[in-house]
Amino acid sequence: MSLNQQSILRDAMRRLNLTRDEFSARIEVKRRTLDSWLVPAASAGARTMPSTTRLLIEHLLKDAGLAAASIEPADEPGFGGSRHLLSVDQFDRAGLERFIRVADVMQPFAARQETTRVLEGAVLSNLFFEASTRTRLSFGAAFARLGGTVLDTTGMTFSSMAKGESIYDTSRVIAGYADAIVVRHPDEGSVAQFAAASNVPVLNAGDGAGEHPSQALLDIYTIQREFSFLGKRIDGAHIAMLGDLRYGRTVHSLARLLSLYNDLTFTLYAPKQLEMPEHIVELVRAKGHTVEICATPADAMAGADAVYATRIQLERMSEAAGAEFTDYRIDQAMIDAHLPADALLMHPLPRDSREGAADLSSEIVSDPRLAIFRQADNGVAVRMAIFTEALSVSHLVTRSATPVPWFVPATYGSDDATLLPDH
Amino acid sequence: MSLNQQSILRDAMRRLNLTRDEFSARIEVKRRTLDSWLVPAASAGARTMPSTTRLLIEHLLKDAGLAAASIEPADEPGFGGSRHLLSVDQFDRAGLERFIRVADVMQPFAARQETTRVLEGAVLSNLFFEASTRTRLSFGAAFARLGGTVLDTTGMTFSSMAKGESIYDTSRVIAGYADAIVVRHPDEGSVAQFAAASNVPVLNAGDGAGEHPSQALLDIYTIQREFSFLGKRIDGAHIAMLGDLRYGRTVHSLARLLSLYNDLTFTLYAPKQLEMPEHIVELVRAKGHTVEICATPADAMAGADAVYATRIQLERMSEAAGAEFTDYRIDQAMIDAHLPADALLMHPLPRDSREGAADLSSEIVSDPRLAIFRQADNGVAVRMAIFTEALSVSHLVTRSATPVPWFVPATYGSDDATLLPDH
Amino acid sequence: MSLNQQSILRDAMRRLNLTRDEFSARIEVKRRTLDSWLVPAASAGARTMPSTTRLLIEHLLKDAGLAAASIEPADEPGFGGSRHLLSVDQFDRAGLERFIRVADVMQPFAARQETTRVLEGAVLSNLFFEASTRTRLSFGAAFARLGGTVLDTTGMTFSSMAKGESIYDTSRVIAGYADAIVVRHPDEGSVAQFAAASNVPVLNAGDGAGEHPSQALLDIYTIQREFSFLGKRIDGAHIAMLGDLRYGRTVHSLARLLSLYNDLTFTLYAPKQLEMPEHIVELVRAKGHTVEICATPADAMAGADAVYATRIQLERMSEAAGAEFTDYRIDQAMIDAHLPADALLMHPLPRDSREGAADLSSEIVSDPRLAIFRQADNGVAVRMAIFTEALSVSHLVTRSATPVPWFVPATYGSDDATLLPDH
Repeated sequence: MSLNQQSILRDAMRRLNLTRDEFSARIEVKRRTLDSWLVPAASAGARTMPSTTRLLIEHLLKDAGLAAASIEPADEPGFGGSRHLLSVDQFDRAGLERFIRVADVMQPFAARQETTRVLEGAVLSNLFFEASTRTRLSFGAAFARLGGTVLDTTGMTFSSMAKGESIYDTSRVIAGYADAIVVRHPDEGSVAQFAAASNVPVLNAGDGAGEHPSQALLDIYTIQREFSFLGKRIDGAHIAMLGDLRYGRTVHSLARLLSLYNDLTFTLYAPKQLEMPEHIVELVRAKGHTVEICATPADAMAGADAVYATRIQLERMSEAAGAEFTDYRIDQAMIDAHLPADALLMHPLPRDSREGAADLSSEIVSDPRLAIFRQADNGVAVRMAIFTEALSVSHLVTRSATPVPWFVPATYGSDDATLLPDH
Repeated sequence: MSLNQQSILRDAMRRLNLTRDEFSARIEVKRRTLDSWLVPAASAGARTMPSTTRLLIEHLLKDAGLAAASIEPADEPGFGGSRHLLSVDQFDRAGLERFIRVADVMQPFAARQETTRVLEGAVLSNLFFEASTRTRLSFGAAFARLGGTVLDTTGMTFSSMAKGESIYDTSRVIAGYADAIVVRHPDEGSVAQFAAASNVPVLNAGDGAGEHPSQALLDIYTIQREFSFLGKRIDGAHIAMLGDLRYGRTVHSLARLLSLYNDLTFTLYAPKQLEMPEHIVELVRAKGHTVEICATPADAMAGADAVYATRIQLERMSEAAGAEFTDYRIDQAMIDAHLPADALLMHPLPRDSREGAADLSSEIVSDPRLAIFRQADNGVAVRMAIFTEALSVSHLVTRSATPVPWFVPATYGSDDATLLPDH
Repeated sequence: MSLNQQSILRDAMRRLNLTRDEFSARIEVKRRTLDSWLVPAASAGARTMPSTTRLLIEHLLKDAGLAAASIEPADEPGFGGSRHLLSVDQFDRAGLERFIRVADVMQPFAARQETTRVLEGAVLSNLFFEASTRTRLSFGAAFARLGGTVLDTTGMTFSSMAKGESIYDTSRVIAGYADAIVVRHPDEGSVAQFAAASNVPVLNAGDGAGEHPSQALLDIYTIQREFSFLGKRIDGAHIAMLGDLRYGRTVHSLARLLSLYNDLTFTLYAPKQLEMPEHIVELVRAKGHTVEICATPADAMAGADAVYATRIQLERMSEAAGAEFTDYRIDQAMIDAHLPADALLMHPLPRDSREGAADLSSEIVSDPRLAIFRQADNGVAVRMAIFTEALSVSHLVTRSATPVPWFVPATYGSDDATLLPDH
């Protein structure tokens, strides 16, 4: 099956840490041939890799001391030894690479090419103490695509907590109902309190100014995946971060994950008062990466492999302070002038489409560099991987795979562009 | 299986456009015999049709150039060529007749006689930007009865839209999570905006003063189904419409669908200022139907085959204006005096049960002519058909059919009457 | 399978109404041996009962005129002849004992050792007209664990009821969508109105000052189950009830269910003005039980087999009145001084963890006597039993049993203690 073929190839390149050019040289085929094996099976130019090549790749991995491409049960469960996912700090590079491979295994299920029933009968308690429709639906869809049942609780209050119930009691009781608990909460550290009471996996869906690890994981997964299509590696890449780098927790978490790789260059642009906190800059530099502070968005994005833009949260500022930032805006003219043709343009969403918003312009929709929707799409595969790793079923997912009988569009959005026109 | 038998017979009558009397003459059996074949299998007087009759019917349909009764994949997917369902205008008569046949195929599953898993693993995003519990649950139950998972979002705001996210971005992101998107929104045209961004089917569950196509489809399905039990056809029928004909979007959509049939008579009664808009009346007349404006509810319902009553939405009016309409009330005495014994009494619900409400009286519950609950029940089969047509699985639904092992009551309501005492 | 073994043994003891000591004597094995058969299969000291013992037990039951241990279809469906569950008064002792056996059958599914798909394709409408997150999730998890789909409606208003729709119409329409309807409503008697309109089972999840039968059932199930582990019987037991005995509907319902057993002693402590209503005390005494009113919490709990504590609902009282009760507090020192080592400490939850709260202290977490979390856990098995009894599928649940492939912790809570250290 061609999906396996793609997974095998991408997995091998990643494990051997080779670009497409390097990898095609190593297996002694033309780059164009390798590309044709990597195209989705349904596409026009897709070709099947010969079985001898498959065997060769197995030998290459074996010689390099790397295991086979299929996912095997993890040596230690969960994320850095815990089944709770609270922080990106739970990942080292090996852990992150395993996680990315698990997310790859989830792709055909997230992309609705196949269904799996591995979590049939399992129950997710989705606890959202503040509204976050996108995150709630993404976690919910991920659990449902694994065959499980989702029970949502939304709104600012949990009725029993309003009567003085402790987080301990609330979490312990829910642990008796559910197989996994996703918590979104406005207070930093509160999700860790939930985790402290429960032996059932508690997964942080954002705790105020704290962490939002599933977002950071889908961000890095997107970079890794799109780079692999483009024949690039994260090692040595140039990443630009733009916008509110002070309050945007997603850029902080992403910077931490990226710093697990080698020799990156970060170019940062933020309006005054919204600069990246010094401790993050120092942490990244301490790992040997280059960090440049830029004077304009254009300076930061020039030559970048990936641009990560964030919304400026005007609602957090006084009107006077907010007014200063209204000239920050990334529009089509700016990216045409400054962003390389094979770069990615990312954003955690939502982007503000209101007139004069200090944000990535919502007029940019079909530019192939715009990765924001593919990024959101990847959230499903990444959150599926979070569940299967937390519940130790990653290696079982493909066993109950069945083709999807219903209509699935070739692209989800009416204006979607593929990564590069000739890919 | 007797369910097939009923479907085959009703389908044949509909395709050949014959009443029960005409059809029984054509297949040379007594009307009473035909009736016994049409009774639900579990009922006392149910009889099995001989296989020779089944063959005869196949020949009749073949000679008339009409295909077999089983549902085959549609020539073009969805509704008039689009997988989105935005408006009843997407249907021509052939499209409507296919849709009704598909809804018939869904009946045993909607009626909990059998289960199907055709959408197992699929995800519905039910987006309700305004409250409509009944419609939300009906769409949700329909998707669940097909084996899919329902993720609800309710309330006036979608959290990311409150931060300035465009409908385009919202819809595109949801399309990456879900296999179908149901949208209820207070603003006319907004659901079409969702559809414009998504290649995943977007289904209109009501957009303010705009359309509510699933309601119109269940209304016409109910008329068609009950007429078929009564041995009537929609062609040539007399339909009365009563109540708020100005703001009631359901009567507008129903009038449009009915006008696809031939030679109907419409009798309309509305309190002053709430008359049917002239452009609807003209559209119906332009298709060759008769429209009569009546001075009283009694005049309008006299001799009708079906009465469609609507609630007068006093909350939309000033108190002074609303006071005028308090004499509009359809009660048991009125229907006993004016409504024929084999007529249907329909209403889109909810009906206002408060004292003095200008509405269909809530005292009417067990009258066999009262079709309002059967009408609501049909919503499940109709919305199942919407999903299976949008997702191209109508022909696959029966493949995974399994009998329901749990208790299902013979009638859902404690006071339910069947259509006619002797049926 | 050892689960059956445990069920068979506990069921036999219950039916024969014998303690562990009496039962081990009857089947002529040592008490220690019997204990090893009753330990969960996964535990260290678990042993398999010989098949000859199993046969002997079958003969004992047969000789006593009692049927086999497996669940057979009920003679009359539902609860005391009705499929609706509105009140604990629907149970007599035989009905309660059957119900407890059905809940035992649900345990391995509620405890996520096995999955069942008996309600696959079924739809639950969970209607919560007032917030009760715990109860909603517990009913939802129970239905999901049976393979069914849950559709939630939460919030103070049902949108159509706001437009004047009667409870009759609302209930009848929902009955056309769902296979079971759970209703929580602030008004006493309203759930019975829902039931009056529907032939689909309506299950009372609390109707204001009225009833909350599923809570009472899980309370008595917990007592019965834990007593059976401890080798005790409910007949002859000493039950202490503490706290708000006036407004706490759970203690009223529990007292009624307990009074179906024989020769109980109730010791009651309530702050002034919050005493148990006289009609409950009289009802219990009329059944031959002893009721003592105690002057302090310590007096009431001394020598008890089970203590049922409730929260004092200060929010219902004026500040002045509430101030009086702030000295009511059950803390670790009190239970260490007065509560027997093999007693249970129960509470319907939530318990108020705020400083100075008049409640069971939230510092008590790991004391093996603290049964409150095991009590909440039991809610899932009990509500599964409510659904399977209402829908007549209790005897079918084990047919589709499949082992759970995902991670399930040995204890749900990080600080959970087992009932007794040596059990």
